[in-house]
Amino acid sequence: MRDVAIIGIGQTPVAEHWEIALRDLAVQAVQAALLDAQVERPQMLFVGNMLSAVLSGQQNLGALVADHAGLRGIEAFKVEAACASGAAAARIAYLAVAGGACEVALACGVEKMTDGGPDEATAALAGAADAEYEAEHGLSFVAINALLMQRYMHEYGYEHDDFAPFAINAHQNAAANPNAMFPRPITREQYLRARPIATPITLLDSSGIGDGAAAVVLASAEFAARLGGPLVRVAASAAATDAVALHDRREPLFLQGMSDSAQRAYAQAGITPADLDFFELHDAFTIMSALSLEACGFAPRGKGVALALDGEITRQGRLPICTLGGLKARGHPVGASGVYQIVEAVQQLRGQAGPNQLPGCRLGMAQSIGGSGANVITHILERVS
Amino acid sequence: MRDVAIIGIGQTPVAEHWEIALRDLAVQAVQAALLDAQVERPQMLFVGNMLSAVLSGQQNLGALVADHAGLRGIEAFKVEAACASGAAAARIAYLAVAGGACEVALACGVEKMTDGGPDEATAALAGAADAEYEAEHGLSFVAINALLMQRYMHEYGYEHDDFAPFAINAHQNAAANPNAMFPRPITREQYLRARPIATPITLLDSSGIGDGAAAVVLASAEFAARLGGPLVRVAASAAATDAVALHDRREPLFLQGMSDSAQRAYAQAGITPADLDFFELHDAFTIMSALSLEACGFAPRGKGVALALDGEITRQGRLPICTLGGLKARGHPVGASGVYQIVEAVQQLRGQAGPNQLPGCRLGMAQSIGGSGANVITHILERVS
Repeated sequence: MRDVAIIGIGQTPVAEHWEIALRDLAVQAVQAALLDAQVERPQMLFVGNMLSAVLSGQQNLGALVADHAGLRGIEAFKVEAACASGAAAARIAYLAVAGGACEVALACGVEKMTDGGPDEATAALAGAADAEYEAEHGLSFVAINALLMQRYMHEYGYEHDDFAPFAINAHQNAAANPNAMFPRPITREQYLRARPIATPITLLDSSGIGDGAAAVVLASAEFAARLGGPLVRVAASAAATDAVALHDRREPLFLQGMSDSAQRAYAQAGITPADLDFFELHDAFTIMSALSLEACGFAPRGKGVALALDGEITRQGRLPICTLGGLKARGHPVGASGVYQIVEAVQQLRGQAGPNQLPGCRLGMAQSIGGSGANVITHILERVS
Repeated sequence: MRDVAIIGIGQTPVAEHWEIALRDLAVQAVQAALLDAQVERPQMLFVGNMLSAVLSGQQNLGALVADHAGLRGIEAFKVEAACASGAAAARIAYLAVAGGACEVALACGVEKMTDGGPDEATAALAGAADAEYEAEHGLSFVAINALLMQRYMHEYGYEHDDFAPFAINAHQNAAANPNAMFPRPITREQYLRARPIATPITLLDSSGIGDGAAAVVLASAEFAARLGGPLVRVAASAAATDAVALHDRREPLFLQGMSDSAQRAYAQAGITPADLDFFELHDAFTIMSALSLEACGFAPRGKGVALALDGEITRQGRLPICTLGGLKARGHPVGASGVYQIVEAVQQLRGQAGPNQLPGCRLGMAQSIGGSGANVITHILERVS
C-alpha cells in the first residue's frame, strides 16, 4: 500500500438547512473540497450517509451526488456504518487510493436529519442499535447511552456534574467556528440546570439534530507532492467492530472495538497515544468522550472523566479534544460527522483553524463511532511539510 | 494491484423467509462461503444491502453480520448502490484484496424484503429512483421501467410479446436450481396471459419480491494458489455511474453507465464481448435484459430483443444469459442479487451448475444495476485451472 495525502477539504455549516436539499448540501461540500484541492475530476466518490433512505426516501447517493456535483460517470458508492458512515467512506476512499485503484478519490459525508421530524429522526437513529434486541423493546439511541452513563457513574463513583467539562470545552471551541451549529460558550451552571433527555443524560450531554455535509479529497503521495502548500499525510487508517447490542459485550464500559481500532491505527502510524497533539473524538454524548479517552489509551479505566476534570482536554491541556466544537457543539449530522472530524483535523494541521489554532501541531487523530461502539474508524493525520 | 481469486461461495434459497431474521439469512450465506473456502476468519467483511433501514429498522449491518457470523472485531461496512448493493460490496472487497489491504475479504449481499408488506417494499424500492424528480411524483420503480419499455417498443417497433424469450429462458433455467424462488418453466401462452403490473410490464416481465443472502470469499491469487481445486480468478472488476433520473439522461434507451462499466471491465480483462461464454445480466425487468445486451456490445441498439427472439440467449445459444434463473426466476432480493450473480458465475466456471452446466465454459460476466441504470458494477470471472 502506498502513502496517501489529503489534498482538499470542504464543509457546509451545520444547521437546520430547511432550504437546501440533501443532494445540494453534498454538492456544496464536494465542490468546496475539489476547489481546495484544485482537482476537477476524481476517479471515485464514496458517500457516507446513514438516514436518507428513511428520512428522505433516497438511496443510491453515490450516483446521485456524483451526477449533481458534475462528476457523472465516475465510480461512486454509498458506505454506511451508522453514525460512523462518513469516516467509513473516508476509509474506503483511502483503501482505493492506497491500493492503487485510483490516483484521486473523494469522500463525502452528508446528512439531512430535518427531512423528517424529531420523532422520525429519533426512530431512524435507533437503527444504529440492535433492532431486535434493543430498539424493538423501546430503547432509543439516547437511552442506550444513558444506560452506559448510569453504569459508569455507579461503577466509578462520579456524579453527573463531573461530566460538565466535556460540554463546556466543546461549546467553548465551537464559539469561533463559523461552521458550528451551537457557537455559544456555556457555563457550568447552565450545564447543571439543563433539562433531562434520558436520565442521567441532559440536553447539554447530547449532540443535537442537524444537517450538514463535509468532504475530503484523497490522493496518492506522489500526486500530492506535485501540489504546493502544506501537505497532510494519512499516517493511519483503521477500523474494527464489536457487538452491536450492549448486552452482547463482555465489558460494556470498555469499548473493545474502539480499542482495537485505535491500536491498529497506532501500529500503522508507528506511534503511541502520547505522540498525538490532539484528538477529534466522537462526543455524541459526554459519556462517549470519557469512554473514548479510556479505550484509546489516554486514561486508565474510570479515569476519562478525571482527565477532563483536570483540564487536560482543553486547547491548553495535554490532549485537546473537539478543537472546533466536536459533535456536541459543531453539530452531529450523523453520516457526515466522521468527515467533519477529518476536515477539522486537516484545518489544525494546515494552520487554518483560526482562533482555535493549536500552535505547532503535527499529529492528530480523528475517530468516529457507529452505534454505541459497534463500528469504530480511526484516522491519524500528520503534517509532513 | 494484484490478482484476486474467488475461493468460496455461499447462498440461501431465495424465498419468502418469514421464519428467518435478516441477520440469520446473512449468517447462513457467510458461513457457507467460509466453509466452502476453508477459511475461518477473513480480515474484512462488506455487506451489500438496500432496504433494511426502511423495512427492518436496522443499520450498521457490517458490524451486525460480522458479530453474528462469529467474526466479531473484524473490519466491516455496509455498501449501498440501490439494487446493485451486493455487487458494490463485492467490488469493494475486490479493491481491498487487490490493493493489498488484506489477504482475504468477504462480500455478502442480503435482503429481507418481506420484513415489510408489498406496499412498503414498493415504496422503499422507489428510493432507487430520484426521490425528488421521480418518486415524489408517484413513479414507482416498476413504472420507470415501464416508461423505458414503452419507449423501446415505440422506437424500435416491437410488440410486448417479443419480450417473451427473456422470461421463458429465465424460468427454464431456474427449474433445476434448488435456490430459485420460481423454479417453474413457463410457456409463451402463460407469458401472453400474465396480468399487467405497469403497462406494458406484466407479472412475467418482472422479478418478484423475495428474501435471500449470498456471499463470496475473495483472496489474493497467492493465497488462493495454496488451495486445491478449480481456481476462479477475477479478470475484471469495474463500475460506473449515470444520472439517477431518466429525464436527465441524453438517450434514455442507451444505458451509458452500463456501457462505461462494461468497457472498463473489457479493457481490464483484455477481452471483447465475443470472448465471453455466458453473461449473468440484471433482468429485473425484461426491458433491462434487452438494454443490457445492447449497452454491453452484444447487439446493436434496438436489437437486444432480436437476439433473444433468435434463441441466442438460451443455454444452447451464442450467449447464454441468466443461466440459473436470473433475477426473474431465481429471485431478486435486491441488495443480494449482485452477489447471487457472482456465486452462479463461479458455479458455472467450477463445473458445479448441475443440470444447467455450460460445458467447457471459462469466461463469464456478472453485471448488476442500481436504479434504472444509475450505478452499474461489472465483474468478469475466469477459470484458470
